[in-house]
Parts: sequence; structure tokens; C-alpha cells
Amino acid sequence: MTRLLIENGYFVTMDDDQPKFQGWMAVEDERIAALGEGEAPEEEKSLASAKLDGKGYLFMPGLVNTHGHAAMSLLRGLADDLALQDWLQNHMWPTEARYTGDDVYWGSALAAAEMIKSGTTTFVDMYDHMHRVAEVVERSGMRASLTRGVIGLCPEDVQKAKLADAIQFAKDWHGAANGRVSVMISPHAPYTCPPDYILKFVEAAHDLDLPMHTHMSETIAEVEQNVRDYGYRPVEHLDRLGMFGRPTLVAHAVHLNDDEIALLAERGVAVSHNPVSNLKLASGVARVPDLLKAGVTVSLGTDSAASNNNLDLFQEISMAALLHKGVSGDPTVVPAAEALRMGTLYGARSIGLEGVTGQLKAGLKADFIALNVDRPHFVPRTDYVSHLAYAARGSDVAHVWVDGKQLLKDGKLLTLDEEKIKAEAEACFRRLRG
Amino acid sequence: MTRLLIENGYFVTMDDDQPKFQGWMAVEDERIAALGEGEAPEEEKSLASAKLDGKGYLFMPGLVNTHGHAAMSLLRGLADDLALQDWLQNHMWPTEARYTGDDVYWGSALAAAEMIKSGTTTFVDMYDHMHRVAEVVERSGMRASLTRGVIGLCPEDVQKAKLADAIQFAKDWHGAANGRVSVMISPHAPYTCPPDYILKFVEAAHDLDLPMHTHMSETIAEVEQNVRDYGYRPVEHLDRLGMFGRPTLVAHAVHLNDDEIALLAERGVAVSHNPVSNLKLASGVARVPDLLKAGVTVSLGTDSAASNNNLDLFQEISMAALLHKGVSGDPTVVPAAEALRMGTLYGARSIGLEGVTGQLKAGLKADFIALNVDRPHFVPRTDYVSHLAYAARGSDVAHVWVDGKQLLKDGKLLTLDEEKIKAEAEACFRRLRG
Repeated sequence: MTRLLIENGYFVTMDDDQPKFQGWMAVEDERIAALGEGEAPEEEKSLASAKLDGKGYLFMPGLVNTHGHAAMSLLRGLADDLALQDWLQNHMWPTEARYTGDDVYWGSALAAAEMIKSGTTTFVDMYDHMHRVAEVVERSGMRASLTRGVIGLCPEDVQKAKLADAIQFAKDWHGAANGRVSVMISPHAPYTCPPDYILKFVEAAHDLDLPMHTHMSETIAEVEQNVRDYGYRPVEHLDRLGMFGRPTLVAHAVHLNDDEIALLAERGVAVSHNPVSNLKLASGVARVPDLLKAGVTVSLGTDSAASNNNLDLFQEISMAALLHKGVSGDPTVVPAAEALRMGTLYGARSIGLEGVTGQLKAGLKADFIALNVDRPHFVPRTDYVSHLAYAARGSDVAHVWVDGKQLLKDGKLLTLDEEKIKAEAEACFRRLRG
Repeated sequence: MTRLLIENGYFVTMDDDQPKFQGWMAVEDERIAALGEGEAPEEEKSLASAKLDGKGYLFMPGLVNTHGHAAMSLLRGLADDLALQDWLQNHMWPTEARYTGDDVYWGSALAAAEMIKSGTTTFVDMYDHMHRVAEVVERSGMRASLTRGVIGLCPEDVQKAKLADAIQFAKDWHGAANGRVSVMISPHAPYTCPPDYILKFVEAAHDLDLPMHTHMSETIAEVEQNVRDYGYRPVEHLDRLGMFGRPTLVAHAVHLNDDEIALLAERGVAVSHNPVSNLKLASGVARVPDLLKAGVTVSLGTDSAASNNNLDLFQEISMAALLHKGVSGDPTVVPAAEALRMGTLYGARSIGLEGVTGQLKAGLKADFIALNVDRPHFVPRTDYVSHLAYAARGSDVAHVWVDGKQLLKDGKLLTLDEEKIKAEAEACFRRLRG
């Protein structure tokens, strides 16, 4: 047993009972054991097997990135300033078709390195060759909800093989790495999977008792196509196919009408809001204040580095806090604390991990980060919740722990070899394009 | 004479003749002497009195922040998620009314520290006690265009004293610090200065042969009030008062109709676009693609840290590149290279410093920055223009030079005492609020 005592730090917990304070926190093995204001009690001091001086640091839950395609980090900056379908069909998909398992491994490792260094401890990943992504999760020490994203525009035998692959991945990896890996079931999107094929994923999710994840209503064109092809907008379409009978996380949900928002709320469907990607691809601006008002759980995702072009979730947090004020004309929507919840607690809730991660609270897994707040952009010490939402950047993160294990110390990765990853990722890119 | 030779770096120049390359640059005293692709010529090597290995670094012009109120960094995080007039009248102005010259000095020093560390080499500042801001510019080694921003809602004798202060400041400081300080003339805004008072500023600007700067059309309420009070929208109002007969930079310009955009273009008025501040205060989204299409020079400003809440111009660059795509629905507007020009060349052009700063080009002042690009979020090396616009953060800046003098080395300030500034700024804030 190890028991780490952190003293004299600032804490922002995302726990309403004690939201922020200057004080201490004790971590026993993989869990948060206790935390409180002021000086640590004598008993805590005597129990500690290790101590950390938290002076000048702010401790908060690790960030939860609820939508992405880690391996696409290899395509960062490859094609910008294009429309979604042009970008996907003419640039991303042709290059991705050449991906080997090794490309997925090194692309995902590059993403993991970037995410850890910018404070993300849990991420959702939807891609192919998922066992190679799971290897990165296992090795890096991160927490992740992984899912084989299946595009069903292919012959029936290929469809069958892809579905079998998704199911096998779930059987092999759900609960692995001391529970740090969980799995979801994912038809890629309503516009890339015929309805009868989506039904098979819903059935598999029921059989395996797993949640579902998909892209939904990212562009207006997709919504129109759905109505044309199937007679319904995507929300009703997926609901009729039974998807929302499972716990579901949908990515994007940019183009929703009032009825669709009400239905998502009623079915308990969570939304991964990806503001930077939605802006860059000109998909539009999701109705986040309306979704939150309706009681929908809205979390944050970077999407891939190919449409962002970084994986710094602090940028999504500040973007969420800023964008909806400017677009709605109401400066009170998505206040700082709510934007931070979207990046932490609501992220955990989106993927069934509330009570596991996303808060600093006794009993939860010790997934937390420390920001160096002894920097000009954190002065004066008016309100750290405001500073975290509006002034912070991922580069302020100095230390990261997941499951009680330290993954980043003074900005240096402890579980991954950054130099090797950068070199291998660069080589993969050259080979893919060469 | 000193002649620094930088070898083996990546260069993004903002000069259309040789926009980007891997190569070398020579800096003689305060100016860029020569630069080129590949290995430095033998002659350059023999001329050099000092050498710098640029491996792993990207060199680009220092950023130009064209609107802000540096001293308001003391108010960072004091009041968020409020409407502009509530925020100004009930939170900012009452606290600012208690500012002494020392508060302005330490608040501006805090801002200078943050700006240098995030790659800004030139900034526009509109405030009070401007000689204290000028002292910060002189000491820090930065370049700045400074202006006493005058609010004219006061008795005539106070109006006179304020105007006299603005004129005296211009006489004392324009061209000071080896030309690093230039001065503009600023009525604060059409809604805070009666028309006859604005006329006096126009006259002073003519007498002193200086450009003008003001806030304009930041909110829809201001535009409506202008029509109600004076019969014209702000652009026509200021044009009739003769302001646009001087070189003028207007901040915000969020609410413009087509005629106003055409008039700004015709008069050569530059716009400082402040997207983060405009979003946070829910002022709206400026018509930047239309302004650029009309030929208006659009540069970028952070506004103050009280409405942003940092001074990282890389965030404004990425926000400008992202926001207008999402809002217009056109993913091709404000492409990466244009967003970078807004943060550099167009910034210089906005304040009459094109040919002085804002580009890497032989003969220009040596105002440049080096980013550490040996980081996961800059991999793979697809396109550094894209990476700078979409993936970079101010924290990537390792070294900064202005006028050939190094101000930042490996992230450490060389001309300012960061520890003292943070402590003094915190103390100023406590006193202002206590």
C-alpha cells in the first residue's frame, strides 16, 4: 500500500459539496482517500508513505475527452480549410485506407503523449485496429472508452467481418488494464451504415451489455440525406432503430430541432460537443445552451487532430465557454464552472464513468492533474474556476496521475517514450504519403 | 556591431517572396540583414559575431496585438459571464477609478510579461497614466503604439485636462525608446465622447500628425444609441467628424452593414478584430470575411485580460481561423495563412508599422520569435503554416527578440523580473479590492 499526501495546494474538485479550497488530498493506491481544506490533519500526516508539496499548483480532476480518433494525429495539417465531405472522401479516407496496425499504434501513441501532456486522463476513441489503440492505453496508463467504428458501405461479407471484429474487440478488452479500458459499440454514423446494419449493432450492444457511440447530425447535409433516404431526421431514425434503448453517446449533434433535443433528454442520450472541429469544418454551432437547459449531458471532445488540429481539451473548454455566449448573444450561458464540468464530470457521466473519474472526491479513482499556476496569466488569484476556463492552456499541466499512478512529472512523460513516438509517427506519415 | 547568424531553423516569414523554408537568418544590430534557404553562405558564416543553432525551432515575426488595455490584467477573473455595460459600469469602471499610476505600471508589466512569453513583440495600448505604460515598454524592450484613451462624459474643464494629457503624452513619448514607442490619439468611443469633443481629438491628431484609435460598434446597443443620439450609425458619424481623414484603427467593429464596410475600405480604416473578447461579452461575431473581401486591413487584438482572460495572441489567431468558418458555413474563409497575417503583417499595417515589423525580411527591425516545434502537437511536419494557426499556443514560444535584442530565452524573461511583477500585481489587486 502507498499513501501519497499532497499538501498546500489549490483544489478545484467538480464536487458540489466542496467545490474549491486551499488544502490537502490523500491518495491511497489507485483511489482518492480523503481531501480537505487547510492543513492536513496529523493522522493524515502519519499515514502518508509519500508527500508532495502542492505550493504553486492547482489540482483538479483529469480531463475527459469524449470523442476522437487518436490515430488520425498522423494526418494533422494534411488538409485544411475544406468542407467535411471533401475533406473526408478526398483526403482522409484515401490516406487512412493505407493504415496498418503499426500506423494506428504510433498515431495513437502520438495522441496519448499529447493528451497526457495537456491534462487529459480519459479519452474516447473510435477507429479501426482497436487492439493497437488498447495497447497504447495499457502501456500509457491512461483510461479510455474504446470502440471499433464501423462504416457499413460495403458488401455483406465485409459488413459481417467488421461487426465480428467490433464484438471480438469488446470481448477481449472491456474491463482490461485494471478496468482502465472500457468498450462501446459503434456504427460510424447513420449516413455510413444502412438501417438493418445499425440494428445488428444495437443487438450486439444488448448482448454484451455495452453502451453505444456514433456520429450524429454533424452537418446539415447529413440530416437532409437522412430524411431523403429514410424519411426521418437522424434522432428519430436512431431512436426507431432502438439505439437509444442503450446508454448512448452521440458525437457532434450540431443540427437539432426542439423535438430532437427533447427526445435526447427523455432517452438520456449524452452529447459529445466538439466545438473546434465543428467550426473548422464549418459544420456549424451546436445548440449547447438549449441542450444543457433540457437536461442533456453535454461533454467535450476534440475530434481528431486532423480537424482541430490539436488535442488540448482546455481549448475545447474555453471555446465552449466563449462560443455560445457570442453566438446566442447571452453572456451568462455556459459559465466557467459549467464549461469545466463539461470537460470533467459530464465527460465521465457521458461514458458511464461517473463515480469512477471526473471529480476529486473520496472513493473515486485517483485520476487528477496539477497545473503550475505560478504564471503571469494566472495572476491575480481572483477565481481559479474562471482562470481554468478562460486563461489556462494544456501547457500549464505539470503533473498527471491516473489510477493513482503518475504519468507526467514536471511536463515529462513517465510511461511513454516521447522521442521515439515523435520519430515513429513522422516515419509512419512519410510512408503513408510517400 | 553584432551580427547573429541563426542556422538550420524553419522560417515562416509572412513575406510572399519566400514565405517558408528551412534555412538561416542573419541579424545585424537591430535589423534583419539577410535570410535564405538551406545552408548559410560562407560569407555569412565569416561575418557572424554570434551563432544560434535553430534546430527544432520555428522562427517567425513577433506577433502584433492591436487592441488592449494592459493595466486591466489586474482585473483578470474579477467578473465573468456578464453583459458589456453591466461588466463595465458595475465592475470594471468602479475598480479602475481607484487605479494609481503604480497600479497601471504593475498591471502593464504583468501584461508585458505575459505577452512576451507568448510571442507578442508589439502591442497597442489604450489607457490612462500612459507614461507609466511607456515606462514598461521602455524597460521591457517591447515595441508599442500607445494612446491615452479619453472618456469624455465629464465637465468641460476635466475634458480639457484629459485632452491636454493625451497631447502631452504624444509629445513626450512619440518616437521614444529608439523608436519603439509610437503614439495614437484616442477618443475612447463615440458613445463615451460627445461629437464636439471628438472633433478636438481629430484636430490634435492633425496637428501632431498622428494616427487615431477608438472603440467602435462593439455592441448592437451602441449602434442603436448612436443613431438615436446623433442620427447616424457610428461609421458615418465618425466619418462626418473627420476622423477617417486621419489613418485610423478601430477596435471591434462587430456590427457593420454593407455600406459601412465599403466606407471603411474606401477610407483605409483598419479594424482590430478581438474575437475572444467579443464572444465572452456576447457582443457578437464581426463580419471578418466580408471585411477582408472588401480590402479592409483586419488585425487581431486580445482586448484586456479582464474580458479574454489571457493575452495569448495565438488563441486569437486560431479563433479567427476557426470562428468565421463555423459561423459563415464556409470552411475556406480565413485560411491558416490569412489568420497568421492578421496576427503579424496586418497588425503592423494597422498601426503604420508595415516595413518596420510584422515580417521576416531583410531591412526590417529584428522583431522575431522562435517556437519549440519539437513537441507532439507539431508532429508530423506536414505544414507549419497550418500548425501555427491551428495547433500552436503561446506556450510554444521559447525565444523572443525585439529591435535585435533578446527579451526571452528558453521561456525566461531577460528584461523583466517575473517574480517581482507577479507579487506586485497581486498586491495591487488586493489593495484595489480591499
